[in-house]
Amino acid sequence: MAVYTEIGDDELRDFAALYDIGEVLSCKGIAEGVENSNFLLTTARGNFILTLYEKRVARADLPFFIALMDHLAHQGVACPTPVRARDGEALRELCGRPAAIVTFLNGMWPRRIDASHCAGIGGALARLHLAGRSFAMVRPNDLGPAGWRRLYEACRERAGELQPHLAAELGDELAFLEAAWPRDLPTGIIHADLFPDNVFFRDHELSGLIDFYFACTDFLAYDIAICLNAWCFEPDGSFNVTKARLLVGHYRAARPLDPAELALLPLLARGSALRFLLTRLYDWLNQTAGALVRPKDPTEYLKKLRFHRGIAGPSAYGIDD
Amino acid sequence: MAVYTEIGDDELRDFAALYDIGEVLSCKGIAEGVENSNFLLTTARGNFILTLYEKRVARADLPFFIALMDHLAHQGVACPTPVRARDGEALRELCGRPAAIVTFLNGMWPRRIDASHCAGIGGALARLHLAGRSFAMVRPNDLGPAGWRRLYEACRERAGELQPHLAAELGDELAFLEAAWPRDLPTGIIHADLFPDNVFFRDHELSGLIDFYFACTDFLAYDIAICLNAWCFEPDGSFNVTKARLLVGHYRAARPLDPAELALLPLLARGSALRFLLTRLYDWLNQTAGALVRPKDPTEYLKKLRFHRGIAGPSAYGIDD
Repeated sequence: MAVYTEIGDDELRDFAALYDIGEVLSCKGIAEGVENSNFLLTTARGNFILTLYEKRVARADLPFFIALMDHLAHQGVACPTPVRARDGEALRELCGRPAAIVTFLNGMWPRRIDASHCAGIGGALARLHLAGRSFAMVRPNDLGPAGWRRLYEACRERAGELQPHLAAELGDELAFLEAAWPRDLPTGIIHADLFPDNVFFRDHELSGLIDFYFACTDFLAYDIAICLNAWCFEPDGSFNVTKARLLVGHYRAARPLDPAELALLPLLARGSALRFLLTRLYDWLNQTAGALVRPKDPTEYLKKLRFHRGIAGPSAYGIDD
Repeated sequence: MAVYTEIGDDELRDFAALYDIGEVLSCKGIAEGVENSNFLLTTARGNFILTLYEKRVARADLPFFIALMDHLAHQGVACPTPVRARDGEALRELCGRPAAIVTFLNGMWPRRIDASHCAGIGGALARLHLAGRSFAMVRPNDLGPAGWRRLYEACRERAGELQPHLAAELGDELAFLEAAWPRDLPTGIIHADLFPDNVFFRDHELSGLIDFYFACTDFLAYDIAICLNAWCFEPDGSFNVTKARLLVGHYRAARPLDPAELALLPLLARGSALRFLLTRLYDWLNQTAGALVRPKDPTEYLKKLRFHRGIAGPSAYGIDD
């Protein structure tokens, strides 16, 4: 929930005049998203989203993200399409920050996840992966195992502030994952952050995917593992196999899984749980007074990690071979 | 910058179904406003604002605010118009909170105030006061002198944390204002919080007034004094007499001022400065960890108070008799 930058009247008018979007009628900061400042821009042509990229997003990565959204939208994925200014450029500067206008997607992200959402997200994820095949650019996942190690080292001394013995548990988990992490699964464009607040629905029909600012090139099945964590646990911490079966089933209907991808899902889910646990732990340990964003609870992902560590195989997710 | 309440999907759909506004296509929290949770609702019929009234707004006052906006809008004041559900009610309940949908106003609040904005606000304020004449309901100003006394008593012991000797200065000021505060100036509906972020412009033309949740029945000239404080000081603390002259001049062109109103403007401006100083001081002293809103700087209004205390009369504002 954040808007980090205020846009001056004249700056906004001059900026919008570079585009064929008509007169700006309104520009309101949106109280969602923690990485960037987002504004709902209403113009004579309709609604748009204006994003100012704050410092947590690396400038060098922005051309990748913009090109990816452009590519996916043209492949029929319901996602924000970057709007090009009259000079053909979609990525510009506003208030000293990189800025882009993208199309507005109808729909709302689900606050209460039910099985139909999980079916929708499974199919959409597979179609995203298929559409990414023809995308030429590559971006390594900086929140893969090497990134986890960096985060772990930055947190280990103070991890005990969250829970006693946490540093040791995370150290063991990380060592195991570093040794066991696969090297040759099917690879391509993954979203890498497909949480419920990044997926819009209209009356239970998936209407759009947003926030591609963690997208990267990695194992496709790792994206499924992220979604299992983000969509299939109940608020009380229990794992809902019906949701998981629908999610993976609808994924496989659009993109069949290799036996290796299926067998390694629990391992990938452990890695995914560790990744979000570590970023949340880092943010939790490094809260700043007066911050506008409340840190998310790291223990949620500690519990998820332990769940995946305790299961025998993908059948515990309700998934058949 | 705040959204305090998350609205569930089903709750929102059921709520919107009570209105003739079409299918809800999007609902995004707006990162503005500190009292309530505001959402930009996009439906098949266009944009609306959905407000959930949080605890800082007294429930008993809501019928007054809703009726006032309705009245003013029908009198031609550009302000949000409450949208009635099919049963005729505009004030309902959502997520356990009072809630209302109002019309969406085009325009943006000015980040950099120039003289043309001050001319616009002067005329709009007078028209608001004239339109309020035919409004039958009354709401005492709970942030008048008696309210200042309550705030002062709640802050006096710790006021020194902001500045040494502040408690004594505020105590003297309050005692002076309590004795000198007028009793018989022209009275009516005032907005009482017409800061720049509550006034929308489209290319320097005023397009709307919002946020009537401090509106009450009080001296009309006190509303002018609030605007002198909110619109006519430069960021460096200097008072801009050109802006004040335009603001008051455009006001008087629509609603002439009594000689007493004019003569008492400096006193009313001291009262207004003390009012915002005290509420800001209270919020500053009572910050809570993890709050989503940064407290505003009380010293800004201490400087304004001292300015008004030091002038000889309204001519110091650049205003002629």
